[in-house]
Amino acid sequence: MTAAAQPQRSGRRPGESGTREAILAAARGAFAELGYDRATIRGIAAGAAVDPALVIHYFGSKDELFGAALEIPVVPGLVLERAAAADPAEIGATIARAFLEAWEPPDNRQRLVAMVRSAMTNEVALGMVREYLGRRVFGPITQALGVPDAELRANLVGSQFIGLAMMRYIARIEPLASASVDRLVAALGPTMQRYLTGELGPGPSAEG
Amino acid sequence: MTAAAQPQRSGRRPGESGTREAILAAARGAFAELGYDRATIRGIAAGAAVDPALVIHYFGSKDELFGAALEIPVVPGLVLERAAAADPAEIGATIARAFLEAWEPPDNRQRLVAMVRSAMTNEVALGMVREYLGRRVFGPITQALGVPDAELRANLVGSQFIGLAMMRYIARIEPLASASVDRLVAALGPTMQRYLTGELGPGPSAEG
Repeated sequence: MTAAAQPQRSGRRPGESGTREAILAAARGAFAELGYDRATIRGIAAGAAVDPALVIHYFGSKDELFGAALEIPVVPGLVLERAAAADPAEIGATIARAFLEAWEPPDNRQRLVAMVRSAMTNEVALGMVREYLGRRVFGPITQALGVPDAELRANLVGSQFIGLAMMRYIARIEPLASASVDRLVAALGPTMQRYLTGELGPGPSAEG
Repeated sequence: MTAAAQPQRSGRRPGESGTREAILAAARGAFAELGYDRATIRGIAAGAAVDPALVIHYFGSKDELFGAALEIPVVPGLVLERAAAADPAEIGATIARAFLEAWEPPDNRQRLVAMVRSAMTNEVALGMVREYLGRRVFGPITQALGVPDAELRANLVGSQFIGLAMMRYIARIEPLASASVDRLVAALGPTMQRYLTGELGPGPSAEG
């Protein structure tokens, strides 16, 4: 079943990897220039001088193309599926574990570092990452929660994960860099749980 | 009283800003090459071709020179003093507020962004930031706590602050970017409190 869901090819056609790269380049240009909403598969295909069906064939959907253009190795949907299937009392630990396990493989880690470095030094890359986080990570969490202040909660979760990734994977600060995933899930789980479902303190109405 | 603590000058001498810059350049070179421990005021002064007393006159101490070389606008000692003076039950909120208030002024924020960007793209800058965090931020917190796993606790605190700074000040993701300091202190305080003094879950002895 899994095999049927993936494109099967009898062999690599000449120019296939060039076509993929051309689509990714056109996609990066379109997402950067137009933003996610206004960029279209049809327009990206035209930019790469290929048929739109080929874009879908290679990348599956606009969402997946967006992730591929950003070189994000983890489909947030998988993390969110795990979170949705979790005991609500364990959603914090579930999300913490899903995040850590997604980024632990060295290949993924390398791409995370590249993405963060790009976003820190290039406004276009930062805009793409910002849109990606909002649309693919924070948005779905927010919708699934059904709690007040869902956007701020999702931002807080993201801030802890991004900071953890920077200290553990980029700056490699000890002992955090060498701590086991289990230990970090135990440390971060309650934080995520409170950010997602707990009491956050005075709401916006309490602000001046 | 405050005025007396600062060097008083009848006017700016020619070359003063050049001298300061020469000292900072020598300091960056020395800290990057030798690390904080082995770099000396005397050696930095020699590198800048000035008297060591002039280095002290301009920068006060090796610690402050280190912060100035990194262009870090906030002396962590001030944050830590506030934390030490706080009610132990309020140390999380106190540290969260001190951190946010230190970084809110636009000048400080700009330098934070520059520092993070440098650390993300340059191994020398990253090494300096790593050493700075360990020596000036995490080390003192750790010593003051007197709890088990103090180093990991300090790392966790740092990871949340760094991620918050990235999302709020660099990526400017909403609604986090526009949330009031009071709201964020309420949201982050309990996280910091638990990281610093609470139950973190299974300790290293529980690891395989």
